[in-house]
Amino acid sequence: MTEAETPSSTPPSARTTVNRYRWLAKYDKDTIHAILDAQPLCHVAFIHDGKPIVTPTMQWREGDRIYWHGAAAGRAMKASTSAEVCLCVSILDGFVMARAAFNFNVNHRSVMVFGKAEQVTDRAEKERQLKRMVDGYVAGQWDRLRPVTEAEMNATTILSLSLDEASAKVRTGHPEDNDADYDFPAWAGTIPIRFDVGEPIPDPRNLPGVEMPAGVKDFKIG
Amino acid sequence: MTEAETPSSTPPSARTTVNRYRWLAKYDKDTIHAILDAQPLCHVAFIHDGKPIVTPTMQWREGDRIYWHGAAAGRAMKASTSAEVCLCVSILDGFVMARAAFNFNVNHRSVMVFGKAEQVTDRAEKERQLKRMVDGYVAGQWDRLRPVTEAEMNATTILSLSLDEASAKVRTGHPEDNDADYDFPAWAGTIPIRFDVGEPIPDPRNLPGVEMPAGVKDFKIG
Repeated sequence: MTEAETPSSTPPSARTTVNRYRWLAKYDKDTIHAILDAQPLCHVAFIHDGKPIVTPTMQWREGDRIYWHGAAAGRAMKASTSAEVCLCVSILDGFVMARAAFNFNVNHRSVMVFGKAEQVTDRAEKERQLKRMVDGYVAGQWDRLRPVTEAEMNATTILSLSLDEASAKVRTGHPEDNDADYDFPAWAGTIPIRFDVGEPIPDPRNLPGVEMPAGVKDFKIG
Repeated sequence: MTEAETPSSTPPSARTTVNRYRWLAKYDKDTIHAILDAQPLCHVAFIHDGKPIVTPTMQWREGDRIYWHGAAAGRAMKASTSAEVCLCVSILDGFVMARAAFNFNVNHRSVMVFGKAEQVTDRAEKERQLKRMVDGYVAGQWDRLRPVTEAEMNATTILSLSLDEASAKVRTGHPEDNDADYDFPAWAGTIPIRFDVGEPIPDPRNLPGVEMPAGVKDFKIG
C-alpha cells in the first residue's frame, strides 16, 4: 500500500475529494478528459420520488463540459434537468489477483462528476451538440445521415454538466500486498481486460453501392 | 421500431417498469442472472447529504440476491447500508449506426435493481460471501491465499440486495430505421464491442515455483 502518496493535484470541492484509495486520486483536467474521451458509456445518478436511480447512457465532452441525451418524455431526463446529478465513467482495465483476498483489486480508470445538470435549450446548439456526438463516433457521419427532423429534435433532451467538480481514479500495475505477504506462496498477478472492436456488420438492407465510412472501419474505443 | 412488441414477462413493481424502449425490457430471472453473471462491474447509486452519488464497484450473485463489498469506514457503504439504492450492471455490445441520427443506438445488456441494501452482519456468512466473490473470479482461489484476518474482516462491509425489483434491457441486432429511411443512401450497420482478456501478467515478486492457477489461464468475462 502507498497511502502516504499524495494525489496528483488538489480536489475542487469537499464532495469531490476521493477518500478511499485516495492515493489513486487525480484531479487534473488532462487525466479526466482522457478517461471521458476513452469511454462514452456512463452512468448518471439522480433522485426521483426521493429515491436514487442510476441509468446507463452515452456521454460526450466539449472542453470542460460533458453532455448526454435522452428522450424528452423520459423519467431520467425529466428528473435530472436542473437537478443535482452524479455522473460516473468507469473503464475496467484488469483484475489484480493479490496474495491476500483483502488486496484483491481491479485496474481501472474512472471519473466522477457532481453538479446540477443544465438543459441545452438553444435549437442551434442542440443540433450542434448532437452532430458532435454522432461525429465523435464516426467522423463526418452526421452529414451522411438522413437530416434530423423537428419532431426528433423536440423529442430529444440534451443535458450538460460542468467538469468543475470532477475527480478521477486510476489504478495500474501489479498487486500491492502487505510486506509480510510477499513471502506467502500464492500466485499473484494481473489479468488485463480490453475492449475489442469487432469487424463491422453491414445492415443487410443497405442500398447497393453504399460504402462503409472510413471511421467505421477504423473504429476505436477504450 | 417495434414499440408494439410486448416485454418478455411482467415487471415486478411500478418503478421497475421499463418505459423507454420498453420493447427491449425483460423481467425473467434467467435473463437478469445471465447479465449479472457476465459482468461483475456495477454502479451503485445512493443518497448522501440529500444528493445522489454513484460509485463503481464489483458485484457478485447468489440465487436471487446480489452482493458487493467495500471499506466499512467509507462513505459509499455507510450511506448505502439499510438505505434505498439503485444498482446497475451494463454491458456494451456494440454501436448501432442507423440511417438517421435519431435511431443511433447501442447494442447492450443491462440490469437495474432497486431496493434497500442489507448489510451481511453474520461473521461466517461474511466470510462465505467473500470466498464466493474471490472464487467466482478464479476457482479455488480463496484457499490458495493468505488467510483473511479479523482486522480485514472488520474493515470490510458487505451489502446485499434482493433481485425482487430487477429489470433487464437487451438490445441486439441491426439498426432499426423508420420505414421511409431504408431508401436513404447512408451506410448502416453495427460495430461489435467485446471484452478481450489479455495474457495474465505474473507479479515479478512471485516466489520461485509458484504456478499460475488454471482459473487465471482460462479467465473469461462478458
